[in-house]
Amino acid sequence: MKKICYKPIGVVHSPFRSREDIEPMRNTRSRGFQNVRGKIEVFPPYEEGLKDISGFSHLIVLFVFHQSQAGRLLVRPPGRRSVRGVFATRSPHRPNPIGMTVVKLRKRRGNVLEISGLDIVEGSPVLDIKPYTPKDRKSSIRTGFLAPRKGRRRS
Amino acid sequence: MKKICYKPIGVVHSPFRSREDIEPMRNTRSRGFQNVRGKIEVFPPYEEGLKDISGFSHLIVLFVFHQSQAGRLLVRPPGRRSVRGVFATRSPHRPNPIGMTVVKLRKRRGNVLEISGLDIVEGSPVLDIKPYTPKDRKSSIRTGFLAPRKGRRRS
Repeated sequence: MKKICYKPIGVVHSPFRSREDIEPMRNTRSRGFQNVRGKIEVFPPYEEGLKDISGFSHLIVLFVFHQSQAGRLLVRPPGRRSVRGVFATRSPHRPNPIGMTVVKLRKRRGNVLEISGLDIVEGSPVLDIKPYTPKDRKSSIRTGFLAPRKGRRRS
Repeated sequence: MKKICYKPIGVVHSPFRSREDIEPMRNTRSRGFQNVRGKIEVFPPYEEGLKDISGFSHLIVLFVFHQSQAGRLLVRPPGRRSVRGVFATRSPHRPNPIGMTVVKLRKRRGNVLEISGLDIVEGSPVLDIKPYTPKDRKSSIRTGFLAPRKGRRRS
């Protein structure tokens, strides 16, 4: 299949300057990033596409892992011992380094979205913004090796 | 910002041959596609990246809206009267036509993932597969114009 190319529609402004600023274990908690605030600056030519967005409390953000290294198929999640298949992880070092996160929309000011629940680093190029809908909320999920280990001490 | 290019890692096999086969109102229901089964064929060079994936019940799939038209900023959702900002919709006709959906993983057979909850058309190129985690599940969501209208008759 041939290559597919995209042009960023905006950029993320975040208190995290690099991946190292993000504690990996936050990722396994449902509210790990709840209090982290930032902004999505949508480039002016795309601002019209933000019409009606204020009606939604949560947004799906697709962005570029711009600090990632070449795509790997096996990765070692930070703080873990085992090597995992990359598609079973949220590692940025993926064949196509696209990130997906759900953030809370606090306020829209023109072409800028003020958000919270941010787990993205400063300067990440944004590819798309979508409303989070009931279809995106799944119950009774199993989360493989991410699941809390019961009755076992962490060494 | 410069263009960013990706190469598909797989392809979707679906009972939906085209967008017209998908009833639009299913999109507003949380379980609208629960019984729709299909497959994700991961191309053999990427199969190793599927290690450990069977531990997860739900997967996030990023794919190409390959039947979409050129990116628009305002769209009219099917069955609706008003024109909406594209980033407040899940329309395939977006500046960067990348789709995101959450499916249920039924079984992995080598490089093929058998899935349900599919709302994608046959032949959609797959860019990425990620595990669905507690962080992706949001409660108390507001869904703007998608919210059911109370006490108003639909004409």
